[in-house]
Amino acid sequence: MSRIAVDAMGGDHAPAEVVWGAVAAARAGHTVSLVGDEERIRSVLDEAEADLEIVPASQVIEMADDAAKAIRDKRDASVAVAARLVADGEADGFVSAGSTGAAMAAAALIMGRLPGVTRPAIASLFPNHTVILDSGANVNCRPEDLGQFAVMGSALAQIHFGIESPRVGLVNIGEERGKGRDLEKETYRLLEQMPGINFIGNIEGRDLATDRAEVFVTDGYTGNVIIKTAEGASRLTLSLTLEAISDPGLQEAVAALGPSIAGLRHRLDPENTGGGHLLGVDGVAVIAHGSSSRVAIVSAITLAAEGIEGDLPNRISDGLARAAALAG
Amino acid sequence: MSRIAVDAMGGDHAPAEVVWGAVAAARAGHTVSLVGDEERIRSVLDEAEADLEIVPASQVIEMADDAAKAIRDKRDASVAVAARLVADGEADGFVSAGSTGAAMAAAALIMGRLPGVTRPAIASLFPNHTVILDSGANVNCRPEDLGQFAVMGSALAQIHFGIESPRVGLVNIGEERGKGRDLEKETYRLLEQMPGINFIGNIEGRDLATDRAEVFVTDGYTGNVIIKTAEGASRLTLSLTLEAISDPGLQEAVAALGPSIAGLRHRLDPENTGGGHLLGVDGVAVIAHGSSSRVAIVSAITLAAEGIEGDLPNRISDGLARAAALAG
Repeated sequence: MSRIAVDAMGGDHAPAEVVWGAVAAARAGHTVSLVGDEERIRSVLDEAEADLEIVPASQVIEMADDAAKAIRDKRDASVAVAARLVADGEADGFVSAGSTGAAMAAAALIMGRLPGVTRPAIASLFPNHTVILDSGANVNCRPEDLGQFAVMGSALAQIHFGIESPRVGLVNIGEERGKGRDLEKETYRLLEQMPGINFIGNIEGRDLATDRAEVFVTDGYTGNVIIKTAEGASRLTLSLTLEAISDPGLQEAVAALGPSIAGLRHRLDPENTGGGHLLGVDGVAVIAHGSSSRVAIVSAITLAAEGIEGDLPNRISDGLARAAALAG
Repeated sequence: MSRIAVDAMGGDHAPAEVVWGAVAAARAGHTVSLVGDEERIRSVLDEAEADLEIVPASQVIEMADDAAKAIRDKRDASVAVAARLVADGEADGFVSAGSTGAAMAAAALIMGRLPGVTRPAIASLFPNHTVILDSGANVNCRPEDLGQFAVMGSALAQIHFGIESPRVGLVNIGEERGKGRDLEKETYRLLEQMPGINFIGNIEGRDLATDRAEVFVTDGYTGNVIIKTAEGASRLTLSLTLEAISDPGLQEAVAALGPSIAGLRHRLDPENTGGGHLLGVDGVAVIAHGSSSRVAIVSAITLAAEGIEGDLPNRISDGLARAAALAG
């Protein structure tokens, strides 16, 4: 049974929503430890009439802190203690809705990177069996980084979508070879020759609505722009839909469809995708949205559990080693 | 009365759909000249029982052609002749659904750039009073290019949205100053100091669904990724909406909402935004989607007419001159 350390102090609504989410996940069968201010966590647990393990941590990293410096200086910060539980083998993965930079720094510095990984990347999952990486860890990337993202994203897609040979696409501004910046041109040539990768060529943002690829590879600036644009466009489309059907004569029909539309809103809400895996570090690390509600925390814990059960870090290591051996 | 030269040979469904679209625009009051193969255009006009002016052009630029080279070699290409009509003052603007590269090269080489413009940019309009530029003309940009995009996009937003002082946002991966790549960091400092620009700071793709800014400034790679991601996410949301309400028990309600949903699909369909203005060239140039239907051609002609009536090129010149004078 995998054990997940949850940073109870990270997030806009911490610790209350995080603790409530952890309680719900525990009731659904997950083994969860809460890391942070013992007294504050205990008070929420009492309210929830639950009894989860608490691992005390006396410090908190604030959003304004310099992340890498804070991880070094605040050794008893909740996210650092959570990462240390994983590094020491006392937990199999951690979840944090706190500062993304701090969670990345904690994972990279305390758990360490997997052998050969140059840059860990954040992989975001979309509701339609798509994973996009890097979605924000590295604003500047080299072609070889994107090559590693292809391997790491494929491992994640294998586990989460149950696909043996996930299709990998390179995000670009056209389908034809030779499109894009130098980064895309060079990465195209690299991915084409890379063993163990099912590279299908260039893809575009519009392929979020097609079935061309499961893994979208791009740099962290572009990936971040993609997930936020998709969020904005999806919200705009839903609000225009509601506006389009706001005619008073249609209210009976709208009422009949209400529950279905509400279900869809829930499914599309980025809060409910649970956040993203940080790939390339030695252990499972899930970075949840800062605004996570208890529902989002349950999703993030579930995401971490799936990664642990699928042996994500080892699968990534194997993939990178195989690619290196075949290429060499 | 403004006169618009339409490249009848450009686009996946040329000349038929282009000519039908031009006829519809003429019937709605626009003055349109069709540029291209006289015989083929005449045959569609006969079918439409219409009589528009034809300006003969014997050559066509294919999608596979090298755009800049083709403009120099094929002097009688339809898009080159259309641009020449504008350069010679015989038309006030042109519309082409052919190769984007060829239309850009025709505008820049034949009509010429406005004084001081380093890089013309494609500006795409979104249904919610938003303009994004550059959306594909320049994959690599410098901060000073993005500064010019801010001025040019503001002029376009003034005309098309009727806003006196459009709010300009810099596309980035977070709202805080100091986010992003070197390009964003340097552009932020530039826009902050730029006179005549209503700069509101960093914006994100999710702001497509908010009311924070009318002008989204970014490089052509990122802008292209944004418009295609928005298209994909919007399609995905609509198709998931239809899936969510596909329960047999809801069909009566769905039928009642059908016309409203169809209207929304039409409004969100990128075909119906009419394409984008090429800004920074000496005259109005609208680049329509290659897959343009007759409806899309009407939208593109309307877009061009609005730019002409709003005196778009002069307004851009004035804005650039004012910014240069105030900065100097």
